[in-house]
Amino acid sequence: MIVDTFWQRKTAQHHIFLLFPVCYSLNGYKEYIYNRDSEGVAMKIVLTGSAGRIGHTIALQLLVEGHQVTGIDLAPARIEHAHYHHVQCPFEQAEMLNDAVKGADVLLHIGAMMSWHPKDNAAMFHANVTATQWLLDAARGAGVKRFVFASSGEVYPEVRAQFQPVTEDHPRNPVSFYGLTKKLAEDLVLFYQQQGLETVILRFPHTQSIDELLDPDSFFSGPRFFLDGKIRQMRSFGNDVVADKLQTVRDRLGGPAMIVQYGEDDNLPYQMHIADVRDTADGVILAMTHPRAANGIYNLGTDEPVAFEDMLPVMAQATGLPLIDVTMPGKAVRFKTSNQKIKRELGYQPRFTFPDMIAQAARLTVYRHNTKESV
Amino acid sequence: MIVDTFWQRKTAQHHIFLLFPVCYSLNGYKEYIYNRDSEGVAMKIVLTGSAGRIGHTIALQLLVEGHQVTGIDLAPARIEHAHYHHVQCPFEQAEMLNDAVKGADVLLHIGAMMSWHPKDNAAMFHANVTATQWLLDAARGAGVKRFVFASSGEVYPEVRAQFQPVTEDHPRNPVSFYGLTKKLAEDLVLFYQQQGLETVILRFPHTQSIDELLDPDSFFSGPRFFLDGKIRQMRSFGNDVVADKLQTVRDRLGGPAMIVQYGEDDNLPYQMHIADVRDTADGVILAMTHPRAANGIYNLGTDEPVAFEDMLPVMAQATGLPLIDVTMPGKAVRFKTSNQKIKRELGYQPRFTFPDMIAQAARLTVYRHNTKESV
Repeated sequence: MIVDTFWQRKTAQHHIFLLFPVCYSLNGYKEYIYNRDSEGVAMKIVLTGSAGRIGHTIALQLLVEGHQVTGIDLAPARIEHAHYHHVQCPFEQAEMLNDAVKGADVLLHIGAMMSWHPKDNAAMFHANVTATQWLLDAARGAGVKRFVFASSGEVYPEVRAQFQPVTEDHPRNPVSFYGLTKKLAEDLVLFYQQQGLETVILRFPHTQSIDELLDPDSFFSGPRFFLDGKIRQMRSFGNDVVADKLQTVRDRLGGPAMIVQYGEDDNLPYQMHIADVRDTADGVILAMTHPRAANGIYNLGTDEPVAFEDMLPVMAQATGLPLIDVTMPGKAVRFKTSNQKIKRELGYQPRFTFPDMIAQAARLTVYRHNTKESV
Repeated sequence: MIVDTFWQRKTAQHHIFLLFPVCYSLNGYKEYIYNRDSEGVAMKIVLTGSAGRIGHTIALQLLVEGHQVTGIDLAPARIEHAHYHHVQCPFEQAEMLNDAVKGADVLLHIGAMMSWHPKDNAAMFHANVTATQWLLDAARGAGVKRFVFASSGEVYPEVRAQFQPVTEDHPRNPVSFYGLTKKLAEDLVLFYQQQGLETVILRFPHTQSIDELLDPDSFFSGPRFFLDGKIRQMRSFGNDVVADKLQTVRDRLGGPAMIVQYGEDDNLPYQMHIADVRDTADGVILAMTHPRAANGIYNLGTDEPVAFEDMLPVMAQATGLPLIDVTMPGKAVRFKTSNQKIKRELGYQPRFTFPDMIAQAARLTVYRHNTKESV
C-alpha cells in the first residue's frame, strides 16, 4: 500500500514537472530548473549500478523527473522506459564505457561490489577502484559537467572513530578492505578533481529498502537483525565458533528469532545509521544538481542512528518473531555520524526515519501476503 | 673498465660470502647472515620488474649473494643462472603470480610503469596499483616474511614541497598520476601491513645507470640533459610551443647540445636527486634484510641533490657537446630530499656521487667505443 502511495506521488510529481518545469520545493529541499531539449529531456545522465538497489531507485526518480538515463550494470536492465538505455557491461570493456559516457552531462558512479571476504579482495578492488579510474578517464574525456561518487562511511572507520559524531573531517583509516577500496577511489576522484573535473563525494551510510528490512533472507537485513541470517554470515566468514554458539541458542529456542546484538567486551547494544534507499537516492540527485555541491565531500547520513535495543522489539512485533539478545566478539558497533554538512550546505533532509521504515515494511509484507505476488 | 671492476668486486664478494656465510661489513653498512639450505641457497626471493633497469641490478646482486631469485616481468629474461627462474607474465594471470610467490621468503615489488601521458593512466593504474593488490594478496597467501615495495618521491610531491629537505613525514599529495598510483599502492601496502604482513616502503629518487647517463637517446637521461631529448619529450607531451621554441635554439646552434634547465618563472636552475642504480639496488636489499626495516617507510635518496648548473658543464665536457641554458615553463624543479632516516636506522650509505657517475659513464663510453660492442 505504502509503495502505491509512494509511486503515485512520484507520478504526480512527474506530471507537475513536465507541465511546469520551474523551481519548486518538495521534501524540504529545493529542486533545480533544467533546460529541456525538444523531446523534454533535461539532462543526459550516466548511472553505474543502475540495476542495483540504490541505482535502480535513482534511475526511476531521474526518469520521473524527465532526465535521460544510460544505466551501466553487470546485470540486465530492470527498467523499460523511452528515456532509459541500458548497457550491460563488465568494466573490462573500457571502449563500451567511453561510448556510454559520450555526450553525458553527469556521471553518477553508484555501482560497487561489497564483500568482507579476503578472497574477494581482488575482484572488489577491480570493481571499486580500477573501474572508478576508468570511469573518471571516460568522464574527463567526454567532458561531463559533474562526477558524483558513492563512497562509504567505512572509509573513516566509524566502528573505531576517534570522535563522534563522525564528521567529514574525521581522518580516513578504513579497517575493512571494502572501506579501503572506497578510500582509494576517493583519492582517484580527488586527483581528477584537481585536474579540473567537477566532482562530489558522498559517503553512504548502511542503506536498506523497505522490501528487505523484514526479510530474513535479504543481504543486508538478514545478518543484521535475524538469528538465522547471523548464523549463516558467521559460517561464511569462517567464524565457526560464533556460528556454533548461535546455533545452540537457536536449537534451544526451536526456531528463528530476531536479535539485539551486543558487544561481548563492552556489553553495549549495537547502534548505527541505517538509511532508507529512497533518501539515499534523493541525496545523490541533490549532489548531482546543487551548484554548491561542486567538489564537495558529504556524509549522506540519517539524522539519528538506529538504537538496536529500541528498534528490534518493534521489528519483532512486526514479524511475529521472538526477540533475543546475542553477544558478538569484540566491542559493540556503536557510532553516530553527522549529516549536518549536507543539510546545511545543500538543504538535504531525509524523509524516512527507521520507525517509518519498519511501519512501511510491515505494511508491504501484509500487502504482499494479500496479493500473493512480489511488488 | 669501471663496469669490469664493479662486477669483479661483486664476484669477490660472492666468493667471500659462500666461503664464510657470516656477518660482515662492506660499503659502510652491515650485511646479515643467511641460513643456507643444502644447495647453498640463502633466501627464496620473488622480484617483480626483474628485467628492468633496477630490478636487473638487484637480481644480479641477489644471485651473487647466493639467493634464489624468481623474476616476474612482462619482458623476457635477461639472466641465465642456476638459481634464477624467470616468469614472463602479464599481471592479469593471477594464478601464475600465486604459483610464483608460493614458497618465497620475501617479495621485492620493484616493477612499475612510468609515464606522464594521461592516455596511459589506465594502463599505469593497472600496472602500478592493481598489480600491487594482487601481489599483496599472493604474498599474504604464501606467507612471505617481508614485502618490499618500491614507491617514489613523486608521492610528496617534491616539486611542490611544503618544506625541504623532504622527510618521510611530509604530507603526500602527488601532482602526477604516476605519483598518485604510487600513493594508492602505498596505502594498499599499509593496509595489508595492518593485517599482519611485514612490509617496507622505499621511496625511490630519480635513478639512472651509468650506461644511460651520457646517452642522448636514453629514457631518463635523454630528456633531462640533452636538447634533442627535451624537444622529443615536449613534442610527445603535446607541448608544441615549448618544443618549437627549443627547436629554434637547436636550428641556430646547428646541432645537438647539452642543456641546463631553468624555471621561466623564478629564473633558477634545476636541482634534484639522481641516484645510481647500484645504490638503489643496495637500498632494496638492505630493506629486505635489515630487521629494523620491518614495517618502515624510507626515502632511498642520495646524500645531495644534483645541481644542474654545476654538473652539466662536466657532462658537456665528457660528451664533447656544447652546453646551453634553456628555460622551461613554470618554476624550476628544485628540491632536496632527506635520506637521514634510512642512514640512521639501517646504516644505508650510497656509494656513488653524481661526479662518480659521470666519470664512470665517460669511461664506459670510451670502453664501448674501443670494444665496439655493448657491455
